[in-house]
Amino acid sequence: MAASTNNNKPRVVIIGCGFGGLEAARALARAPVDVTLVDRTNHHLFQPLLYQVATAGLSAPAIAAPIRHLFRKQANVTCLLGEVSAIDPGARQVQLKDGMALPYDHLVVAAGATHSYFGRDEWAAFAPGLKTLDDAFEIRRRILLAFESAEKESDPRAREACLTFVVIGGGPTGVEMAGTVAEIACDTLPGEFRHIDPAKAQVLLIEGSPRVLLAMPEDLSLRAQRQLERLGVQVRVNSRVTSVDAGSVEVQPESGAAYRIASRCIVWAAGVAASPLGRQLADATGARTDRAGRVLVEPDLTLPGHPEISVIGDLAAAQSHVPGKEPRPVPGVSPAAKQMGRAAAANILRRIAGQPTRPFRYRDYGNLATIGRNAAVVDLAWRLGRFKFSGYFAWLFWLFAHIYFLIGFRNRLVVLIDWASAYWSRQRYARVVTGIEQQQAKARGAQT
Amino acid sequence: MAASTNNNKPRVVIIGCGFGGLEAARALARAPVDVTLVDRTNHHLFQPLLYQVATAGLSAPAIAAPIRHLFRKQANVTCLLGEVSAIDPGARQVQLKDGMALPYDHLVVAAGATHSYFGRDEWAAFAPGLKTLDDAFEIRRRILLAFESAEKESDPRAREACLTFVVIGGGPTGVEMAGTVAEIACDTLPGEFRHIDPAKAQVLLIEGSPRVLLAMPEDLSLRAQRQLERLGVQVRVNSRVTSVDAGSVEVQPESGAAYRIASRCIVWAAGVAASPLGRQLADATGARTDRAGRVLVEPDLTLPGHPEISVIGDLAAAQSHVPGKEPRPVPGVSPAAKQMGRAAAANILRRIAGQPTRPFRYRDYGNLATIGRNAAVVDLAWRLGRFKFSGYFAWLFWLFAHIYFLIGFRNRLVVLIDWASAYWSRQRYARVVTGIEQQQAKARGAQT
Repeated sequence: MAASTNNNKPRVVIIGCGFGGLEAARALARAPVDVTLVDRTNHHLFQPLLYQVATAGLSAPAIAAPIRHLFRKQANVTCLLGEVSAIDPGARQVQLKDGMALPYDHLVVAAGATHSYFGRDEWAAFAPGLKTLDDAFEIRRRILLAFESAEKESDPRAREACLTFVVIGGGPTGVEMAGTVAEIACDTLPGEFRHIDPAKAQVLLIEGSPRVLLAMPEDLSLRAQRQLERLGVQVRVNSRVTSVDAGSVEVQPESGAAYRIASRCIVWAAGVAASPLGRQLADATGARTDRAGRVLVEPDLTLPGHPEISVIGDLAAAQSHVPGKEPRPVPGVSPAAKQMGRAAAANILRRIAGQPTRPFRYRDYGNLATIGRNAAVVDLAWRLGRFKFSGYFAWLFWLFAHIYFLIGFRNRLVVLIDWASAYWSRQRYARVVTGIEQQQAKARGAQT
Repeated sequence: MAASTNNNKPRVVIIGCGFGGLEAARALARAPVDVTLVDRTNHHLFQPLLYQVATAGLSAPAIAAPIRHLFRKQANVTCLLGEVSAIDPGARQVQLKDGMALPYDHLVVAAGATHSYFGRDEWAAFAPGLKTLDDAFEIRRRILLAFESAEKESDPRAREACLTFVVIGGGPTGVEMAGTVAEIACDTLPGEFRHIDPAKAQVLLIEGSPRVLLAMPEDLSLRAQRQLERLGVQVRVNSRVTSVDAGSVEVQPESGAAYRIASRCIVWAAGVAASPLGRQLADATGARTDRAGRVLVEPDLTLPGHPEISVIGDLAAAQSHVPGKEPRPVPGVSPAAKQMGRAAAANILRRIAGQPTRPFRYRDYGNLATIGRNAAVVDLAWRLGRFKFSGYFAWLFWLFAHIYFLIGFRNRLVVLIDWASAYWSRQRYARVVTGIEQQQAKARGAQT
């Protein structure tokens, strides 16, 4: 059912320019609709490489493209910088925090996810997660300043705490962070300090389940763990974190007594929660959410009773429908978000044309996770068959896959070659830390 | 007079790793001294290109090198991250804010300069200057967010205020900023907005003296002004700023009534003041400072009565001594700081060897300032003679001179070629803006 508007073009509002929102907007490029794409930052972030910014291997602009630059040639797309305060399904309007209201005929909600601290939100100040560029800068600052503090520290126990890094959560983000911090300590920094040996830093990866990379096949998980250990990371599986404060983490292993790790740099990679917009939208429409706050959607990614509202990406609890098979949950990964974005856009166009919508089908091409500069695990499921491999060639595959996607993303080969060559030569060129005074003032405030 | 220490090596402490401190530390590389180089950031900043970070043309890591990476091969140099709270000439110690004390036999104070608001320090919140990376990020945020706000603004007067940019101060920094903001508006952004035409932005450059680039020959000043005007900048000379607030600037021209300009983006490039360490050091030693807070030094760059303390760079009011000529003041430019650093280091070694020190002689190779992507003014004084030129070839010269110095600085040609080619093609790839929520919360706080 088409909705008429001024100049008769249906208005599509897309909330969020992550992978889902970006692909939805792109898919509507030549369609007879007016698209408004609103995001609370001015850039689209290539999140798989965010940990590289956090570990000083890449500069922020290398992985963040200005949104309105990406859409400059799509005349029917208007990009706005703003934060959504509420969605009003009755009035068919999106409310922004600055008071602006965006009316819509079709809405795509792609607001993504944020960190979940399992109810212990106060831990956020002590253990930053890694979802935005501000997160990456904060983690980078803490990693590099930990070594700087150690260099000046005369007390051996305090120095050891400075040189102890804890990563909480053994999914791809945690594995990548832990492996890269170990490399910073052992490859990048040795020789640059006079009072400490950075290679003596301890990196611990704490995971509650029995293995890291739980979403991957078991043999790849084990290989990843071995590669981490070869880098010097101490992997503690079957271990839950029960307490986090400014200088330590308390860990409860499955069997054995709880113990405390003194650390000045704790990174949270253990849980995601959907954007609060999911809860607000569910309350306003009667839709249901799962425990992580993701909105349960129909097979065509719309809300029950609201076919004009689609929810995609990390905000959606969606299912993949293959004829003749049981529906399977869609994982919260970038390729899924992109496919959902394209599917939601296609369904909007079908609705406008009066055609029936199609259920979403997720094509899982596999998973990659990198551990360090020479190691990764790759699990591919292509039409040709299934490929699983790890180690050096897996790392090369991972590297070129990311370059490929980033080129399509940024079209600037030279930045990627620069990064890849720096990565190869064990150097890190994005070690700038700013805002040190504010952080130290906060730390002093936190300690008093 | 050599001072004996543990292991008998004299201890040299260098405060600040700008151009002066960097060159002093480098010059002591193979000397029989122990050098401690302390800076309050972890990076050495190539300040001449800081305005490129502020105008989204370069990422921060391209112009900021990690200090301890630069000195990793100099075994006698220890790099520390810290902020100096006070210098104690009696005890020959440098006090850091975290409580650490650094004893010295020779001290080089190269703490540089900061902004001067001519006594109106409250203007700093409304009109950021450009001295550090945090400054550059703040200015970049304000420039880009001004266009974003204009896109959403329905009130025409408020929209015009968003699209009005004011640069205060017509020295090289102000000229470079004004020209680049005009290019952002006219080259980079057109086509990316749907409700505004960025090319209609107004850029005003306010200068109190009769011409911009006062330190350059008059004909080059006039050419620079014409080039700015060709870019669309409105140059207002003989105009003083009498008031700055969150949304406007009040200007008093030499003749005529004062007027107010409504603007959301005001950049301060009008005055520098020496670091407060200059005043503290002068009080502790009886040395004198000039009106800008710079410390008056002896011909060999040391303090009167304290031959073990040298003050260099923007913190020093130094003179250049050429035999048979009148001493001339040394300008506050990067090449002068570098030469002073090397001279101070050489004099320290002479003192250790019991030899007399030499007066400082500044070799002025000339001045460059760029106005935009195709224009610059170059004033060179080489042994071959004096060259003055402007326009396109001046810009090419400026570009290659900076690439040359940055290569020596970073040794990474590819970043510079990347930037130069992006600059050529009128694109800007460092447009990432973060911390938007904090800024908007502050703005709301400032308005209430």
